[in-house]
Amino acid sequence: MADLILTTFDWVPEMPRGYVRDLRVRWALEEARLPYRVDSVPFRDRDTGHYSHQPFGQVPWLTDGDISIFESGAILLYLGERSDALIPTDAQERREVITWLFAALNSVEMASLPWSLFFFSGDTADTPGRKCLDGFLASRLQHLESVLTGREWLAGTFSVADILMADVLRLVHRFEGLAAYPVCRRYVERATSRPAFVKAHADQLAHFAAAD
Amino acid sequence: MADLILTTFDWVPEMPRGYVRDLRVRWALEEARLPYRVDSVPFRDRDTGHYSHQPFGQVPWLTDGDISIFESGAILLYLGERSDALIPTDAQERREVITWLFAALNSVEMASLPWSLFFFSGDTADTPGRKCLDGFLASRLQHLESVLTGREWLAGTFSVADILMADVLRLVHRFEGLAAYPVCRRYVERATSRPAFVKAHADQLAHFAAAD
Repeated sequence: MADLILTTFDWVPEMPRGYVRDLRVRWALEEARLPYRVDSVPFRDRDTGHYSHQPFGQVPWLTDGDISIFESGAILLYLGERSDALIPTDAQERREVITWLFAALNSVEMASLPWSLFFFSGDTADTPGRKCLDGFLASRLQHLESVLTGREWLAGTFSVADILMADVLRLVHRFEGLAAYPVCRRYVERATSRPAFVKAHADQLAHFAAAD
Repeated sequence: MADLILTTFDWVPEMPRGYVRDLRVRWALEEARLPYRVDSVPFRDRDTGHYSHQPFGQVPWLTDGDISIFESGAILLYLGERSDALIPTDAQERREVITWLFAALNSVEMASLPWSLFFFSGDTADTPGRKCLDGFLASRLQHLESVLTGREWLAGTFSVADILMADVLRLVHRFEGLAAYPVCRRYVERATSRPAFVKAHADQLAHFAAAD
């Protein structure tokens, strides 16, 4: 029955646990109540089989019979075709969800992930480059704060756009980057209190803990 | 006849000319030979009308009658439904194109655009954060170099995935970030020698020059 197989690493260091991108796919699968199983590939020795599914040597990827898809955005778009709990079937609502799905990945995460990496590198120098990255993220969050004011979810009902946006913002929040953005913080709290997120998150932690 | 209206800024400074993201949409429209016209909004005074179409105050957006879409990825996906010159109709080929479309935006551009911003900020300090961004981009380009070896386009025939990936890499190339990646350089040259790119690029330059 479980034709859907989600592949992630067999183990990761402590730091990224709870934030590995298979979480986005687990969360979507739980929201849609689609049956699936989780498979693993080595974190340390990535072989050609791994690269044939994910050319950048990252995770996750999803297989559905002969179909193999990488990129969390592409996977969630694919799953959205199987469940209106992820993407509504109405054409206009669908377009809005897809637009916000891209906004999460290419407007917000493009600013936030490098900011987090920079933060995580331990760099404390107040250089022009640092200011540039800080400003890039702030420009996105300020506008997102306005968008989310008075809005429960990005595009009408809860959708894959919220899975991606909340997961993107969650990492910023981890490094205290949402301190000045209370509306964004409440949005993250609202999204991550959903039972599907809670289960997906607990399952990822258990998966990596089992490998210790 | 030209129901499709692409909106961009009325003017931008010299530096981004030729690289403003309306180029991706112009390029796709030219490849698909879809009729369109270009409209402008002020670069300096962005009003609520602008934010109602593009919540981050950026460009481009595309309107098609009552439909309004922002995010270059979402726009190209939308246009891809209207022309198999952009996204093939075969289900498997379509999935591959969409996967690579996301890879361009969320695996490569997420590493390359912040790197470019950092570079453009004039920061020359050799800090841990700088090394982290350099390493992030290199990890993507090394794998992309392998992927593109022996491959003309990312997913079979030329598609929106190539429009996005080539445009992403073009900015890296501008700052000499492709020096160690000859296969990526040749890919950019191949893509940007297409008549549709040449016209789109010339049209963008002419649009901004007309406002000087």
